[in-house]
Amino acid sequence: MNNVLAIDIGGTNSRVGLFDEQGRRLMITESETRRDGGREWMQEHLVKQCGDLLAKSDYPVKACGISFGGPVDFQRQTVTSVHVPGWKDFALAEWGQNAFHLPCQVENDANAGALGEGQFGAGRGTNSLFYFTLSTGIGGGYVADGRIVRGRDGVAGEVGHIPVSDSGAPCSCGARGCLEVFCSGTAIAERGREWGRRRPEGVARMIELSAGQVEEITAKTVALAAAEGDPTAVTIMKEVGRWLARGVLTIVRIVNPDRVVLGGGVSQAGVVLLNPVREALQEFESPTIKYSTEIVLAELGTLSPLYGAAAVALKLSGN
Amino acid sequence: MNNVLAIDIGGTNSRVGLFDEQGRRLMITESETRRDGGREWMQEHLVKQCGDLLAKSDYPVKACGISFGGPVDFQRQTVTSVHVPGWKDFALAEWGQNAFHLPCQVENDANAGALGEGQFGAGRGTNSLFYFTLSTGIGGGYVADGRIVRGRDGVAGEVGHIPVSDSGAPCSCGARGCLEVFCSGTAIAERGREWGRRRPEGVARMIELSAGQVEEITAKTVALAAAEGDPTAVTIMKEVGRWLARGVLTIVRIVNPDRVVLGGGVSQAGVVLLNPVREALQEFESPTIKYSTEIVLAELGTLSPLYGAAAVALKLSGN
Repeated sequence: MNNVLAIDIGGTNSRVGLFDEQGRRLMITESETRRDGGREWMQEHLVKQCGDLLAKSDYPVKACGISFGGPVDFQRQTVTSVHVPGWKDFALAEWGQNAFHLPCQVENDANAGALGEGQFGAGRGTNSLFYFTLSTGIGGGYVADGRIVRGRDGVAGEVGHIPVSDSGAPCSCGARGCLEVFCSGTAIAERGREWGRRRPEGVARMIELSAGQVEEITAKTVALAAAEGDPTAVTIMKEVGRWLARGVLTIVRIVNPDRVVLGGGVSQAGVVLLNPVREALQEFESPTIKYSTEIVLAELGTLSPLYGAAAVALKLSGN
Repeated sequence: MNNVLAIDIGGTNSRVGLFDEQGRRLMITESETRRDGGREWMQEHLVKQCGDLLAKSDYPVKACGISFGGPVDFQRQTVTSVHVPGWKDFALAEWGQNAFHLPCQVENDANAGALGEGQFGAGRGTNSLFYFTLSTGIGGGYVADGRIVRGRDGVAGEVGHIPVSDSGAPCSCGARGCLEVFCSGTAIAERGREWGRRRPEGVARMIELSAGQVEEITAKTVALAAAEGDPTAVTIMKEVGRWLARGVLTIVRIVNPDRVVLGGGVSQAGVVLLNPVREALQEFESPTIKYSTEIVLAELGTLSPLYGAAAVALKLSGN
């Protein structure tokens, strides 16, 4: 019997976990990311958290997988993120190897989420799946025959940045009219706040759920209000679902996977998000190009990338 | 030494060819499709054309590949087209096997074109390529590691039917707002005619190239006029290129192939089409998500699917 170490580094939270040979979680520790701490704080924090886990493991730990919440150069095993100070060009796998004396590999969180759901979640039993990570931004991972499809430059799966509109709305990637502009968590929150500023009387419930402050409305409070049936929140989630359905249909048309898995924080909204997506897909349907790709919610919730990191570690260790 | 037989059945033209073991064309015969002849005419015609080729072959012919210009059920090796009388559910491969006493396999023309360009044309040397067939409609084929990616229902690659607009314009597939609506050959011709009806003085050259008749304007005459610098035709091709660039960028974002190959009749327009596509891609560029996927024109012109049929036959024959 052997175990593996999994790490998920995110902008909001980080998680470390110990998994057994079958990918079962043995222990998981979650903590908030100190945004002003930068890379060095995170490194110290992880060394401590992982050290605790490693000390508690009943069996030898054979490898370490890391999910990183930002762009990763898989070939070079470095982080290419420029959003958080200190991470640019950081050799994350090498660091993990030295820190934990284990073989170590890094994936970006979208690919890790795809691997996690594919092996241990909503994608079990499929030959191909496309995973959406719906969070502050939108990412994606495409798994075919058990392997991530990376593409020529390692940017395959970037479903958040397909061009879907001429509106000219600027995207976090620097381009315009990307899918992410219309249905990311950021977009949902902003839409809620817009309504709140213009017609506060119509969004009383959303504001109530947001500590009474229009500017505190988040994607989560919009989704909560929608789940309670609040009309404005329902309208927002319907629009979001309709945009997202375009992204899903695009994936179906291009790679026609066995399953599309909707994951990431925004997917925690559940049927409040899934139903509008499915309704819009019916509306967009072609009577001549039929498909049976299933559209489902992630099963591992916010842990998809951590499970993916475990999958990476298991593969590294020869499992 | 062995040869193979290749057949390309299209709505406008059909082609039969004899290829050697290296996929070199030895003889090709092209003929117009008699639209009112239906399936039976085509069968008789092909038996005669192929019989001639087989009689002329200096070496044994080992297999037959067929490209069909419409939907094909690859698993069942049948045609599923409903556009032309008599083809629905027709067991085309079985027919070929009996007619020519050769192992026989069928592909739709988009996949065949992708295989043809991948092995013998603009995609040589790539690990992955996405082929656009720009014709009356728009199709596509995605080849990764030498194999067609078919997807769960065999509908992967249908780039003509990704949703790109809320305009509600109906598509040949029965859905609305598909890419095909904006940049197929049909769309280009219709755009030319619209200009002709509304402002005939502005499209004199296009009309001249179209036997003097506005209603005779085709995608080809629009492209010819654009190549001569006719301002309206140039404008049309720029718009078309801009829509097409969205399709190309979507492919880059989702599968990030080594190369995107633009083929089919409309691609015969050459740089008149390619340059606007490249310009729009520059405009759509993200400063943070870089890619090096090359966008090129098909090298085999209207013969891409026939070469693909030869590739299918070569594989069948063990080459």
